[in-house]
Amino acid sequence: MPIEVLAFLNAPTAAPPHVVGAPAWSMVDVREPQLSALDLAATRGDGIFESISVGDGHPQALEPHLARFARSAAALDLPTPDLQAWRGAITAVIAALDPAAECWVKTVLTRGVEGDGRPTGWVYGSHSPDFSSARTDGVRVVFLDRGYRHDVAKTSPWLLQGAKTLSYAVNRSVLREAARRDADDVIFVSSDGFVLEGPTSTVLLRDGNTLLTPSPELGILEGTTQLSIFEWAAGEGFECRTALFGPGSVREADAAWLVSSVRLVAPVRAIDGTLKKVDAALTSRINTYLHAQRS
Amino acid sequence: MPIEVLAFLNAPTAAPPHVVGAPAWSMVDVREPQLSALDLAATRGDGIFESISVGDGHPQALEPHLARFARSAAALDLPTPDLQAWRGAITAVIAALDPAAECWVKTVLTRGVEGDGRPTGWVYGSHSPDFSSARTDGVRVVFLDRGYRHDVAKTSPWLLQGAKTLSYAVNRSVLREAARRDADDVIFVSSDGFVLEGPTSTVLLRDGNTLLTPSPELGILEGTTQLSIFEWAAGEGFECRTALFGPGSVREADAAWLVSSVRLVAPVRAIDGTLKKVDAALTSRINTYLHAQRS
Repeated sequence: MPIEVLAFLNAPTAAPPHVVGAPAWSMVDVREPQLSALDLAATRGDGIFESISVGDGHPQALEPHLARFARSAAALDLPTPDLQAWRGAITAVIAALDPAAECWVKTVLTRGVEGDGRPTGWVYGSHSPDFSSARTDGVRVVFLDRGYRHDVAKTSPWLLQGAKTLSYAVNRSVLREAARRDADDVIFVSSDGFVLEGPTSTVLLRDGNTLLTPSPELGILEGTTQLSIFEWAAGEGFECRTALFGPGSVREADAAWLVSSVRLVAPVRAIDGTLKKVDAALTSRINTYLHAQRS
Repeated sequence: MPIEVLAFLNAPTAAPPHVVGAPAWSMVDVREPQLSALDLAATRGDGIFESISVGDGHPQALEPHLARFARSAAALDLPTPDLQAWRGAITAVIAALDPAAECWVKTVLTRGVEGDGRPTGWVYGSHSPDFSSARTDGVRVVFLDRGYRHDVAKTSPWLLQGAKTLSYAVNRSVLREAARRDADDVIFVSSDGFVLEGPTSTVLLRDGNTLLTPSPELGILEGTTQLSIFEWAAGEGFECRTALFGPGSVREADAAWLVSSVRLVAPVRAIDGTLKKVDAALTSRINTYLHAQRS
């Protein structure tokens, strides 16, 4: 069985036109071209995505991911994804993958070829990379200015802050800037000094018995994995809340993590070149919980 | 002969690895898939492009476009485009197109399939849409906040302002916002009140005998078409300069235009719902000059 699988949806959204009588999805060869160079994904980054972890064959936090996928589609005025079709394609891709403890699937919905009016949708599945070093030893981060005020999602919704779009050139560029600064990852800061998120992760802090994450009103992605952690942590006796805070709060927190669906929880072990203490025990407890998630 | 042509480059950048002995480019069927769904253009908007007008078979301002293409590549840490290969592919695409008074070509360079380390490059050519209404009657624009301060290109180069990237979801989103406001196009304003550019155009103003455009230090694209206009206008007795100004200057200017390579010069005929006088005579002179450009 393959370690990479790709399926294209016939009807990724509820809106017509669809090819009547066609199967809901088609498996395609990962090594062959599948996409038009005129697809707006490729020419304008005009689409949305989700990355979903698959633990022992089970997609994790699937419904929160699909709900966010639909919210991103609405933010971009894309037709509403047909979530039942996506669930089916995701299940089929996972079933076709060579079984492994850790896999992941990516769902992509694009505006399609310009002028066609027909969105393109696909599900890509693969074995996950080995993240054990990031999860155990941690990551070195730098703070970088995202350029936007903390309130642009409210004042200027056309900037699409809070939507998970395919226009990720900046999210990639900041990782190259981090590498130039001898770091592994980035925490974005608003132009007026609020901690936002990583380019592909949510920021999580521990202060004593409290777990903190930046408020979604900052125009950041609502972290599906962070939500799972809060659900679990509340049952473990932690106080969990969202807040507005600056870089100093991350530096001074008892522990800090970058949280994402596939890498899970990676402790921050250095900030702008200054070492930070890693909470190895809590990191391990959270990752064990996340990996065992079955829905 | 076709009205759409697509060619993929074998060696779009100077950096290896290339397929030795392969032709410099290959013509492909526009209707068939050519691109991997794993290409970083499609998954991350991670690449750059140029749109070049072709008047009676001649690519216009080709060298300034290629120079900007190379600057965008540098801003994204992409390998340097092999401009000789691009010139060849552009010439071949134009030669294969059904001749027409107005065509255009688009050059796209992407970081390629993740992990492959081999950039993807293509040239798409087509007959141009009919822009006579925009060029003669003009366009209705709205001012929209771009969210960034005017100086982010200097303070935060990782935001890629001034590079022409494939991550254009916001440039598309603002056009939908304009349509909701019963307008055709947008002029971006910095968060601190400076006029920047359109989502796919340069702003040009006339005050008496002076032509004005926002300064490139604002982190905007240097307009290849605006540069051509300044060259011509200086010879016609206009004073031409770049400046920093706010929305009031656009409202009060004797005339305002949005300038781009393929649509050429479109007069602004309304701003935020208020009508503005169109300078039909100068608009026509500029467009006649631009269409007659032979290099």
